[in-house]
Amino acid sequence: MPLEIERKFLIKNSSYKTDSFKVSFIKQGFLNSNKNRVVRVRILDNSGFLTIKGISSSNGTSRFEWEKEIPLEEANELFQLCEKGVIEKYRYYVNHGDHIYEIDEFKGENEGLVIGEVELGSVDESFSKPTWVGVEVTGDTKFYNSELSKNPFSKWV
Amino acid sequence: MPLEIERKFLIKNSSYKTDSFKVSFIKQGFLNSNKNRVVRVRILDNSGFLTIKGISSSNGTSRFEWEKEIPLEEANELFQLCEKGVIEKYRYYVNHGDHIYEIDEFKGENEGLVIGEVELGSVDESFSKPTWVGVEVTGDTKFYNSELSKNPFSKWV
Repeated sequence: MPLEIERKFLIKNSSYKTDSFKVSFIKQGFLNSNKNRVVRVRILDNSGFLTIKGISSSNGTSRFEWEKEIPLEEANELFQLCEKGVIEKYRYYVNHGDHIYEIDEFKGENEGLVIGEVELGSVDESFSKPTWVGVEVTGDTKFYNSELSKNPFSKWV
Repeated sequence: MPLEIERKFLIKNSSYKTDSFKVSFIKQGFLNSNKNRVVRVRILDNSGFLTIKGISSSNGTSRFEWEKEIPLEEANELFQLCEKGVIEKYRYYVNHGDHIYEIDEFKGENEGLVIGEVELGSVDESFSKPTWVGVEVTGDTKFYNSELSKNPFSKWV
């Protein structure tokens, strides 16, 4: 099972929008939002995906991930079985140095939250940060989408 | 999503073994054992499957089911993420009239439990019963494999 290695940051301002080369719309629900065995149904633009994620390493940087593309109509049917708390967000893609940053602008109950992620080839791979990258939140489980589906940003105190 | 229509029975004696034309070994674990959204990893002989089942109709006869074959090695890796309570059983296949009965002989913590199922094309399709078919348990959730993984037969009082 491939290991997903990524670093996650809060985003300080909206200049990622002008820097981006692509934007997608993502809708996702959870067949299990337990962070030890997350089962996610995702529609990304017009494609469906089923993803299973395991527990994180102690520092939260790497996580087991299994993903299969599935027909859009099957993804839509599986949404009917999902837990309450569907996540909707726009994802902006930005080239920066040798990496692609993905910036998620959350909608609905998580409106106001903007998170950027950069995927790395190894835990110690170096990367540079755009000026709009803020505080690191890698490994902070309350920013996991599976957690945001149960405890959305708009309800944080 | 296809609707699975089946009737489930306890089995009275072991003559299904001599009537059977095939036997398989099944090992399965659950990425979610919640009966509203069961996510099951199964190894059947040398094949892997990922299955998602929805809630049952009020009489328990029909249930939404989504299934994909996955590589055996991926199934083995996904087992590591499953909840405790793996199910192991032998499945005997028996031709009877126009139908195939599948008889599950449970092992491990469910040793002693033997359940037969017949799959139907419609809810009112008629079928005949072999002499070894006993009490009907269709829709009784304690006989769901997802429930047996949490509350196995050997612990029933």
